[in-house]
Amino acid sequence: MELQNDLILRAARGERTERTPVWLMRQAGRILPEYRAVRASLSGFKELVETPERACEVTIQPVDLLGVDAAIIFSDILVIPEAMGLPYRMVEKKGPWFDETIRSKEALSKIHVADPYADLKYVLDAISLTKKELNGRVPLIGFAGAPWTILCYMVEGQGSKTFSIARRMLFENPSLAHELLQMITSGTIDYLKAQIEAGADMLQVFDSWAGVLSADLYHKFALPYMKQICDAIPEVPVTVFAKGAHFILEDFAKLNCRTIGLDWTMDPVQSRALIGTNKTLQGNLDPAILYASEKEIQEATTKMLADFGEHPHIANLGHGVYPDTDPDKVKCFIQAVKAHKRL
Amino acid sequence: MELQNDLILRAARGERTERTPVWLMRQAGRILPEYRAVRASLSGFKELVETPERACEVTIQPVDLLGVDAAIIFSDILVIPEAMGLPYRMVEKKGPWFDETIRSKEALSKIHVADPYADLKYVLDAISLTKKELNGRVPLIGFAGAPWTILCYMVEGQGSKTFSIARRMLFENPSLAHELLQMITSGTIDYLKAQIEAGADMLQVFDSWAGVLSADLYHKFALPYMKQICDAIPEVPVTVFAKGAHFILEDFAKLNCRTIGLDWTMDPVQSRALIGTNKTLQGNLDPAILYASEKEIQEATTKMLADFGEHPHIANLGHGVYPDTDPDKVKCFIQAVKAHKRL
Repeated sequence: MELQNDLILRAARGERTERTPVWLMRQAGRILPEYRAVRASLSGFKELVETPERACEVTIQPVDLLGVDAAIIFSDILVIPEAMGLPYRMVEKKGPWFDETIRSKEALSKIHVADPYADLKYVLDAISLTKKELNGRVPLIGFAGAPWTILCYMVEGQGSKTFSIARRMLFENPSLAHELLQMITSGTIDYLKAQIEAGADMLQVFDSWAGVLSADLYHKFALPYMKQICDAIPEVPVTVFAKGAHFILEDFAKLNCRTIGLDWTMDPVQSRALIGTNKTLQGNLDPAILYASEKEIQEATTKMLADFGEHPHIANLGHGVYPDTDPDKVKCFIQAVKAHKRL
Repeated sequence: MELQNDLILRAARGERTERTPVWLMRQAGRILPEYRAVRASLSGFKELVETPERACEVTIQPVDLLGVDAAIIFSDILVIPEAMGLPYRMVEKKGPWFDETIRSKEALSKIHVADPYADLKYVLDAISLTKKELNGRVPLIGFAGAPWTILCYMVEGQGSKTFSIARRMLFENPSLAHELLQMITSGTIDYLKAQIEAGADMLQVFDSWAGVLSADLYHKFALPYMKQICDAIPEVPVTVFAKGAHFILEDFAKLNCRTIGLDWTMDPVQSRALIGTNKTLQGNLDPAILYASEKEIQEATTKMLADFGEHPHIANLGHGVYPDTDPDKVKCFIQAVKAHKRL
């Protein structure tokens, strides 16, 4: 089916577009009352993730209600550990919780490489259904967590400010870490390819905890696996986003990805200078700016677009939209991007 | 009393020293069994902070047991909000908790500028006592939280990964934020001056949550208050440390501070290039490296010292030492610094 709006795909491919495409990380599943209504009708977050019809519904809501230029499938990065044999629960106000963790060779021997067709069919079904329901209105983004970030949760067993238990493994048992990272990576590649087959038009890899690593450790334990993923996915444009990893932009420029995401602490002009002109950049409005007045949001968005300049750019926030953001402020941001004239 | 070891003061003043001085953020109060024994004999963290004799004891432990080149007074950055009229509890495994928060003009009207002599005498007594007990062996470092970081806790009421409630105030009620920041700053200046009077030989200002701000917001809501503090303290060398704020180093170079702390994601060579040669740099070994073998710790420390080169440098970790670090590994780091020959 031909896409009626393929702006984001053209921008990701490095083409010049008549205006900058826009979407928001976490646009589905945080801010819309319509999302909360769906969520309230179910037992919890995981039932929503695992029920294709409902995942499809909340994925499409921001396309209908906010006017974004892409849908991103409603899911969770932690479906991969679960598919590897490490189930998790989502604890209200606390976040993810794993009863088992991987901190030894023995624990590692009990898990396996994720098989998307056996273990993640519900995501693939959600993607197929969403692709059909979108009916060509906008492209559909698939995603996965980066291997380092997934390792963080599998070793730590929950969220953390420092992920020092996971980082401890990198020094105390680097071969175990590499073995786990490779297992995650292999399953993630299969999973992303299955997402493409199911209908994903582009993909994003989220390295949410990149920023707890030094540049040296990122080079050893994260970048090689990001490279494997990018090299394995020539079919659709891939976006890499490593929050907090201001030190890695030059290296990301050499990956076989099309787009590099920036968080809101990274300066668009300086980042472009580090990355060069070969990649599309994505980002990076401070999500907290959506607490400001509409006038301030418009001004900040216009300034951001000017800072990114004339090279290919996909407008987004610098991180996921915060749950207590007023949807009208999100619309204001989206409208400001759409109203901006490219020179 | 003359100091027998004033290496760190000379390095902070920008003088060339025969070897690089070394201490660790959180060297008191996390890793030593001797600390845990003292802590176990008391009702909790706050009793330890508020009892000068015991605070003195745990402050001196790392000088005796680890051989660091400075002591840092055992205390907490949150004594300032408490002295302003906003008491907190330290909840085991959860961190600080405030029953009241400052989110309105009305709440602000109920608190006051901290008066160190009225409200923080226990810290000043701990400093005087420690200075006496140290008996000139090494300098004593005093400290406070940076105004932005203190505001984070006063508005949020607890720790957070995003401090989005605090950041929301910067957009929704910037004048309230500035009023609170000024109150914190005024009390902090008095508090730091009182610490000098009580015996502190140098001071560090910790901006632990600098990294959640964009450069633009840091310029508006954090830097001006850091500047006020640095300008108000000509008596002793001041160190500023803004974790995660990779974007602020060039601005910090213009402050009336003597030393700039780097976290472990900041490259020493690039940071020196941004900052210039006028400041002493402090840091920045990845705290997780202390989980590695002694050989790896020695190699990483030597590499770090080489990266900092011949300009004035105070060796430290890039953040506080993690609680589960083996004290022998800390000693290994300290010995590696002491064994390093400056060219």
